[in-house]
Amino acid sequence: MRRVAIIGAGITKFGEHWEKGFRELVVEAGIKAVEDAKISGENITAGYVGTMASGKLIGQEHVGALIADYMGLNPIPITRVEGACASGSLALRQGVMAVASGMHDIVVVGGVEKMTDLGTGGVSDALGGAGDQEWELFLGATFPGLYALMAKRHMHEFGTTEEMMASVAVKNHKHGSKNPYAQFQKEITMDNVLNSKMVADPLKVFDCSPITDGAAALVLAPLEIAESYTKKPVEIAASGQASDTIALDNREKLSEISATKIAAEKAYARAGITAKDIDVAEVHDCFTIAEIMAIEDLGFFKKGEGGKASLEGKTTFGGDVVVNTSGGLKSCGHPVGATGIKQAVEITWQLRGNAGERQVKDAEIGLSHNVGGSGATAVVHVYKKG
Amino acid sequence: MRRVAIIGAGITKFGEHWEKGFRELVVEAGIKAVEDAKISGENITAGYVGTMASGKLIGQEHVGALIADYMGLNPIPITRVEGACASGSLALRQGVMAVASGMHDIVVVGGVEKMTDLGTGGVSDALGGAGDQEWELFLGATFPGLYALMAKRHMHEFGTTEEMMASVAVKNHKHGSKNPYAQFQKEITMDNVLNSKMVADPLKVFDCSPITDGAAALVLAPLEIAESYTKKPVEIAASGQASDTIALDNREKLSEISATKIAAEKAYARAGITAKDIDVAEVHDCFTIAEIMAIEDLGFFKKGEGGKASLEGKTTFGGDVVVNTSGGLKSCGHPVGATGIKQAVEITWQLRGNAGERQVKDAEIGLSHNVGGSGATAVVHVYKKG
Repeated sequence: MRRVAIIGAGITKFGEHWEKGFRELVVEAGIKAVEDAKISGENITAGYVGTMASGKLIGQEHVGALIADYMGLNPIPITRVEGACASGSLALRQGVMAVASGMHDIVVVGGVEKMTDLGTGGVSDALGGAGDQEWELFLGATFPGLYALMAKRHMHEFGTTEEMMASVAVKNHKHGSKNPYAQFQKEITMDNVLNSKMVADPLKVFDCSPITDGAAALVLAPLEIAESYTKKPVEIAASGQASDTIALDNREKLSEISATKIAAEKAYARAGITAKDIDVAEVHDCFTIAEIMAIEDLGFFKKGEGGKASLEGKTTFGGDVVVNTSGGLKSCGHPVGATGIKQAVEITWQLRGNAGERQVKDAEIGLSHNVGGSGATAVVHVYKKG
Repeated sequence: MRRVAIIGAGITKFGEHWEKGFRELVVEAGIKAVEDAKISGENITAGYVGTMASGKLIGQEHVGALIADYMGLNPIPITRVEGACASGSLALRQGVMAVASGMHDIVVVGGVEKMTDLGTGGVSDALGGAGDQEWELFLGATFPGLYALMAKRHMHEFGTTEEMMASVAVKNHKHGSKNPYAQFQKEITMDNVLNSKMVADPLKVFDCSPITDGAAALVLAPLEIAESYTKKPVEIAASGQASDTIALDNREKLSEISATKIAAEKAYARAGITAKDIDVAEVHDCFTIAEIMAIEDLGFFKKGEGGKASLEGKTTFGGDVVVNTSGGLKSCGHPVGATGIKQAVEITWQLRGNAGERQVKDAEIGLSHNVGGSGATAVVHVYKKG
């Protein structure tokens, strides 16, 4: 199989876009990526897009064709893939496969979600589709509720505290304050988080990622020809994906996401690295406890020590590994289908060395980690400076 | 790239399944395919599933993970792909790519839709997501309405008649009467069709495919090892996919599906055949006019002559090419995401020579043709007896 590189990256501002629709957002991100790659649309021969719940959120399925149309790319095939909040990374993975296989050379991959057209009740209902509708959501569970169960178990097993979780939010807002594309570009304090309104004990409003509109896109090419497009290609060195039970109550453990562990093992093996080699990582912090589990399950810290590591500043600039320089889902925002691609865009900028005020010095190897639902899907990509 | 073969096929009865849910249907089809391939679940390393509107129909997204869980396949990755009514064929296409690339050996692909849990209003609303919500559906268009526009134009340009369209329904019900998996296993007459209730002029109830529950699944393997599993492998010789405008009003012509033409050209070129070589075809007859356009756009008959050919019996046993031996969407039923896989299952049985009373004698080369929405996506696969 051929090696695959990112040659273009683009993103919209994440936030509440009252004057732009789904199609305007995805076209904006797509055009930025195509311009960044210095290619013409005629060079593109296929595309993949990640969107979780466009059916419920905006009444629109069939978004691959919609995007081919509005990007001016007809008749090339664009295909939607969906894996709840991991939809973006799944689109990236299919794009990597299309190039690696030799079936396509230049492939565009994107992610998009338009979430603010419904009220929060409608959005919660749509997001509930990421879990087990028959055995969780219909019975009254919500996503904050499911992650609260995991948080409680993590606290019970490892002594993780509300302060440790809050430190994740504070750190991610600090990072996000340097990101012009982030939904919330301002810092918050531990007190802000700890005194914010309770959503599902122990998770408070500031432990939760927001509802967001946004889109992100990448242009992929075989590594062997990437340098003819850019002086700074970023190689996608590995892609790992794994599944777990859709419902939490069928899991062996509530204090870990086992699909993350398996996807990471596959990705590390394929890339020939270990967790210690990662300089910069975008991980799935849909709730603060999710980032703590992620940095453990990815092998950055021992199981049970993620909370302490976060509180001690080991996941920010100057620490062991810089996590969520974009601000993460918490501060940059979480337009569900776009998140996985946004993570890859951020890592691309970091490895190119043009992440501005939030640049991780000498970053050579990056990782993105995207979770669907409460962990039934996890996708890990490893990136190397080209 | 490696050559890819079908080594197992399974399908549920299509119809109204009041006592089976989404997950029971897909597991039933999946287990049949796995048993047919004489493999164990442990041999499978990846999967793809096509589902159009599970979010709106049953409140469930993230169905790749759900299926991995209920098939007992965790932690292997299963990914959902969606392209409206072409979702099943897109899942097949991704599976072919996964095997062809060398990333995976044994891959399971499936399609499923559970449509009867909502009333017909809810189903029409969900299906509307296949078209352009902002410029068609929100303004009152329905899918029968969109295809009625195409039918009117086809009648105007080529003199196609209501009798010609009705002959498609009569033929497909005749074929479906021999298919134990079909939703409607009984013959109908021209009078039945022509006197049935008007839905959208000129399309009457019996010109329309029904609302259906069902699932279908296939097991794919590299051709080079397929014979170690089965004496009758069926090669997937080519896969073509193309896009067109999501809204009808942006098309150059209403009397053809140009994405079908482009997808077919690609598939014929890759398979090294022409339309004349096809012995048996499953084509997308969501409405009778759709089959008439399909057999023209696929090159079986000259443009404008599809209606006449249908009326003259050229698309049934003893004709030029036998179309929709399964009964098609019209008589076999149309559980949207499952249809593309069902088409492949039917062609597999035909090329193995075990299609029972509806067997096409000496069938060597088959084709499946699956359309998303009003033609914004078309997918064509070509199959050869192994």
